[in-house]
Amino acid sequence: MDEQSLYSRLAEPSETKIVLLVLDGVGDLRTAEQPRTALEAANTPHLDALAERGALGRIVPVAPGITPGSGPGHLALFGYDPRLPEVDIGRGVLEALGLGLVLRRGEVAVRGNFATADAQGNLVDRRAGRPPTEECRRICALLQEALDAEPVPGLEVQVVPGEAHRFVLVLRGENLSAEIRDTDPQHVGVPALAPEPRLPEAQPTVDRLERALVIMRRAIADEPKANEVLLRGFSKLPHLPSWEELYHLRAGAFAGYPLYRGVASACGMEVVECGKRIGDILDQVERHWQDFDFFFLHVKQTDQAGEDGNLPAKVAVLEEVDAALPRLLELAPDVVAVTGDHSTPAPMAAHSWHPVPLLLWSEHCYVDDRRRFTEEEAIHGHLGTFPARYLTPMMLANAGRLKKFGA
Amino acid sequence: MDEQSLYSRLAEPSETKIVLLVLDGVGDLRTAEQPRTALEAANTPHLDALAERGALGRIVPVAPGITPGSGPGHLALFGYDPRLPEVDIGRGVLEALGLGLVLRRGEVAVRGNFATADAQGNLVDRRAGRPPTEECRRICALLQEALDAEPVPGLEVQVVPGEAHRFVLVLRGENLSAEIRDTDPQHVGVPALAPEPRLPEAQPTVDRLERALVIMRRAIADEPKANEVLLRGFSKLPHLPSWEELYHLRAGAFAGYPLYRGVASACGMEVVECGKRIGDILDQVERHWQDFDFFFLHVKQTDQAGEDGNLPAKVAVLEEVDAALPRLLELAPDVVAVTGDHSTPAPMAAHSWHPVPLLLWSEHCYVDDRRRFTEEEAIHGHLGTFPARYLTPMMLANAGRLKKFGA
Repeated sequence: MDEQSLYSRLAEPSETKIVLLVLDGVGDLRTAEQPRTALEAANTPHLDALAERGALGRIVPVAPGITPGSGPGHLALFGYDPRLPEVDIGRGVLEALGLGLVLRRGEVAVRGNFATADAQGNLVDRRAGRPPTEECRRICALLQEALDAEPVPGLEVQVVPGEAHRFVLVLRGENLSAEIRDTDPQHVGVPALAPEPRLPEAQPTVDRLERALVIMRRAIADEPKANEVLLRGFSKLPHLPSWEELYHLRAGAFAGYPLYRGVASACGMEVVECGKRIGDILDQVERHWQDFDFFFLHVKQTDQAGEDGNLPAKVAVLEEVDAALPRLLELAPDVVAVTGDHSTPAPMAAHSWHPVPLLLWSEHCYVDDRRRFTEEEAIHGHLGTFPARYLTPMMLANAGRLKKFGA
Repeated sequence: MDEQSLYSRLAEPSETKIVLLVLDGVGDLRTAEQPRTALEAANTPHLDALAERGALGRIVPVAPGITPGSGPGHLALFGYDPRLPEVDIGRGVLEALGLGLVLRRGEVAVRGNFATADAQGNLVDRRAGRPPTEECRRICALLQEALDAEPVPGLEVQVVPGEAHRFVLVLRGENLSAEIRDTDPQHVGVPALAPEPRLPEAQPTVDRLERALVIMRRAIADEPKANEVLLRGFSKLPHLPSWEELYHLRAGAFAGYPLYRGVASACGMEVVECGKRIGDILDQVERHWQDFDFFFLHVKQTDQAGEDGNLPAKVAVLEEVDAALPRLLELAPDVVAVTGDHSTPAPMAAHSWHPVPLLLWSEHCYVDDRRRFTEEEAIHGHLGTFPARYLTPMMLANAGRLKKFGA
């Protein structure tokens, strides 16, 4: 039996409420030039008080040395092993989620590029001269109009503009397959490739897609630059067992940014619309406190400040979160976990592989000697350092939602 | 996907340089009689300064409680899981590497014993009275002379004397198989066994080997004691994916002793001839600094002192290494890791299962609160305690040689 099935078998319903507060990219570094991390530099009396009453530890997002993207980082927090192929989220799906689209099972998402082809159909620019995003919207509207005017039987195509030359196609219909090869040849001087099935089962989807491509090409044939489309990363939402099935939990996702809503939704969580800052998020959590057993709260700005290499900004976000923490605790959750999906150290201005500090509080969490929520304190905490995918069972256990294994 | 494949998929080339300094058997014990370990007793200002700027942790060589030999210990340091059968290095190969032979893929190495048989061919002494090593050399020369005088088609046999009754055969030729059973019956009063194929594919090798055995037996028939040979541990170099394939790294091995050169070479590292002490090793590292991305430096004397139960000798080696450390750091490597392949505690005078202290330095390693490179400090370091096979990915990550996993 795999680990997730074991935990699922042990999961039992309860009245308890769990809050997972993800401070995206919260982990930081001490370096020769930056002797204090963001958590060390921040004034966080409420987080520290919770640390004093709770237990600290660290999570390793995927495996030692691996720097996760936001998708794998969150899937691990939600108890899935992101190294498994069936947990992998394809590029098309990620791009779609990133644009705020809500995908349903069975739908195929594809990343598109506008490109320039010459009279013979050979590519001369794989990015169509990087058009302004406004242009991208205009050309996507042309495509959508043409596709709506001449529907392909069995295939509904939605065209969603991205930035510059990028867009997303969402394919809807019966029995669609995502086992289709990229049509981007990856270099110029040759024509776009025809879509080809990776597995025989994808042939009907390819047949319909080819008819849609004819319509799309005709619609933009007279564009001076964006007269060709290249498609990559055909993918569907992974078939993840949902939290409801796994743990008998009603889980709500409170995230202001699309990618995180998308990942939570792929795990069967219900997405609650909310704003981007901790205050906005808590407004909605308070409003929906009776609706869920589990609350995933996502704060993005810690990661953004880290990506910008901006330590003061990261510190300011942490202090903003800290000041809002009492509102969360007043709701009297049974379990509170505060951590990140990965580290985004300001000195690296990027995601990193470093373990992420974790603060866990519950009535029975074990009150260790740690007094502050920092990377250094977390090294020595009761919870130790463990793979992030065990955080979900740890929260369930602390919530009295995992029964005894064996007698 | 297995872990090594995942890391390999994420590996990307870079200009960075990595140094792994292995102090063989460096880990030591505190006991009632030995209250300070070798690292604690040694005066190591340069290692301590690096610890102050870097991060500490501990590696578990194979798995908790397992005392590794040098082969598995180093394979784990090099990122392979020594518990997997395909990573297993056969006894014949280990014996050959230990005698300084460089094996190529496809060659078969075998451990040999000289034995004494009576007139009926029954064994009376499986070790031929443990002859002096000089005698062993003389008899091996007889065998080699006879084999050279009467070559077996398709089989070249090299006879390499070991100590006392032990020798090694290296078999070379087209399509040789190592799937051959031992000829040592393990007790006296019976004749040596005929070599038998474990798989049908080994039959041609066995046929040729039988002809060689006839020649060998004839050559020593008149020896008073060493008139029989027993063969064990037929084996080939394991087919390990090389570091070049796995990580796009040019790796150089700087080791003064044969076994370590052999293991490094089995991983696709290039072996650079060098002396046995840290000073000799650094001479060659300096000379070849432009030739490699990764440098494996092996210091044997810590293990030898540990095996001798000689704490002062172990301390002296550590101080010798420490004094030479500035030469290494002047080369300005991007990543430096200092650790051992296992512990060889002086109070045990043997290899042991205890975790081995690890010191890692890079620009982004995380500067933890640890100030000395010792077993006790390492318990509390940022890197935590983890299986040794993750050290390679940790070094790659610190060298900016692992790209992000997922988006």
